[in-house]
Amino acid sequence: MLKYRQGLADRPSYDMDTNEYRITLNANESTMNLPPIVEDRLMGRFASVAFNRYPGAEDYLSLTRQIAANFKVQPENILLGNGSSEIIEKLFYCFGGSKDAAIVYPQPSFSMYGIYAAAAEAKGVPVDLEPDYTLDLEKFVSAVIKNKARLCVICNPNNPTGTGFSVSDIQYIADNIPTSCAFLVDEAYVEFYGQSAVSLLKDYPNMIIARTFSKAYGLASARVGYSIASAAMTDMIGRSFMPYHMNTLSLVTADIVYQMRHEYVPRIQMVIAERKRLAEAVKQVPGFTVYPSETNFLLIHHEAAPALNEAFERQGIGVRSFGAAPRLTNCLRISMGTREENDTWLSVLRAFAEERA
Amino acid sequence: MLKYRQGLADRPSYDMDTNEYRITLNANESTMNLPPIVEDRLMGRFASVAFNRYPGAEDYLSLTRQIAANFKVQPENILLGNGSSEIIEKLFYCFGGSKDAAIVYPQPSFSMYGIYAAAAEAKGVPVDLEPDYTLDLEKFVSAVIKNKARLCVICNPNNPTGTGFSVSDIQYIADNIPTSCAFLVDEAYVEFYGQSAVSLLKDYPNMIIARTFSKAYGLASARVGYSIASAAMTDMIGRSFMPYHMNTLSLVTADIVYQMRHEYVPRIQMVIAERKRLAEAVKQVPGFTVYPSETNFLLIHHEAAPALNEAFERQGIGVRSFGAAPRLTNCLRISMGTREENDTWLSVLRAFAEERA
Repeated sequence: MLKYRQGLADRPSYDMDTNEYRITLNANESTMNLPPIVEDRLMGRFASVAFNRYPGAEDYLSLTRQIAANFKVQPENILLGNGSSEIIEKLFYCFGGSKDAAIVYPQPSFSMYGIYAAAAEAKGVPVDLEPDYTLDLEKFVSAVIKNKARLCVICNPNNPTGTGFSVSDIQYIADNIPTSCAFLVDEAYVEFYGQSAVSLLKDYPNMIIARTFSKAYGLASARVGYSIASAAMTDMIGRSFMPYHMNTLSLVTADIVYQMRHEYVPRIQMVIAERKRLAEAVKQVPGFTVYPSETNFLLIHHEAAPALNEAFERQGIGVRSFGAAPRLTNCLRISMGTREENDTWLSVLRAFAEERA
Repeated sequence: MLKYRQGLADRPSYDMDTNEYRITLNANESTMNLPPIVEDRLMGRFASVAFNRYPGAEDYLSLTRQIAANFKVQPENILLGNGSSEIIEKLFYCFGGSKDAAIVYPQPSFSMYGIYAAAAEAKGVPVDLEPDYTLDLEKFVSAVIKNKARLCVICNPNNPTGTGFSVSDIQYIADNIPTSCAFLVDEAYVEFYGQSAVSLLKDYPNMIIARTFSKAYGLASARVGYSIASAAMTDMIGRSFMPYHMNTLSLVTADIVYQMRHEYVPRIQMVIAERKRLAEAVKQVPGFTVYPSETNFLLIHHEAAPALNEAFERQGIGVRSFGAAPRLTNCLRISMGTREENDTWLSVLRAFAEERA
């Protein structure tokens, strides 16, 4: 018998979704590929990549400098990762490693927090959101203090509920947790919300913000995310990454997309407009609850959600259901697609409601 | 004060080599970019990538199936990683996590073994190679047994010494270590050697072989490696990877290169021919020792190696020196370049020797 690390056998097997849908709205991706003008520039750039060379400092720093300039910070404040997932995974690792290393996060929220906490050999401490998925700030801060947490996390706006927390809420948490607790604000969906905690960073050296290219910038394929934090914290978290952790192809892709990020503004506005339109439309359908969303998806509730999910699947529409996940019974999360895609699932949903009426 | 994981502060800061050379022979890369016929096919493939979608099972499995077919194993025996580095990092993680979790590896060998052992919170146990960089098999096996090692590692052929170990040596180790000890054979350079332990896998379910696209296949930019092992071990190691750990761009790049791997045969032969030519040439120069190499580099020794390194640098030639690393004093590792590049460094080396004569 091989002597594997304790806890490894309890982790799920590596698994890939092999379902293929006609309309894929289950992963909060952008439903649009690269804007043609971005694609042209990127294909030209690929032609000049030295495929045979290890990723160079130049490509890493080009993207880092752009991000730093945009947020008026220094490159020393930026880390790049294979998606914000890797940033989060490594951050949890950096604050884990002992049974009393508590990491506090809301529930329901990004399902990987619990998995990364276990992988980091930390003590995951989920704090229940209220019935309407808002956050009781006092309860969250108390959990941090009571557990002597090393790290706490807010996903803002929150996946999968869509809830946006205000910058003053974030600041309240930052003001009331001990400075010995690191504070991750996971802003994967912030471009659809517009309220970022970046302005707080200068006052809270224990705060770190994670962002991704996978959502608003439509680059889920490339796995690129980044963090913004104090130089000291950035240096420490950086120590957990292996050399050459970012590949050149993803770096140059994100670099060009970020240069041309104004091209994405109309797309982001379209997603927001669709989210508002669909939220209103679903609210009109009897039996449905729609939770307020500041993201590129809607969380909806219906007492027969599994049957609706089956109706979607019969039509080749993939949305996200949550099985037995806490506090998400009978909820479906639907990513915003194109107007046409959204009309398609809306008509399926309406037909489903009519049949049951 | 933030409460970082124990040991993190002892790890080196994330660092990138910002040196730029006219002739870069310090990282055992291929000095040739994609063959034009491969580049054509790859650029066509990039044009059809869904950049907005998370990496799909299809792209992961296409490469996995190709590799499995080549080695006459099943896809369940293959894991892909961001370079073989990530495979090794995760493998060490999977067998670490306690002070008595010993991981045994030769010294000198790939410098990251010690770093990954520390990161995995394992006990790194380096076993000294003999003065000629051969391996005392008994000594190695004894270290495994004495330390009750959970994992042992052989890099074959060995970086940075170039030494090739025979398949029967590998088998001797496999036969004499306890079956409770996993055995990694890191075959990053095996294409330049031709003697692989893959045929042993079926008899040793505790053995795992790591390979990379970064060396013979000239894809260091893309960060793709893989492992071959029993389905049970592959499943367990796979649990340590986060979802979507491989990006689509690197997957399709490696997929096409592997489809067209016959294009690389002449390149590999050229590297081997150059290695033999240069080894003979340097041996003729007084004061130099050249170690037998089965890789795409030569390790050479000269009592004034630092001065030679400076002479190389003055000519814009980057090679690898090892600072205070154990057993590598006054050694330089030179990757094989094109014939012209090799002639350039050889003439610098000869001029250096003449000046000192």
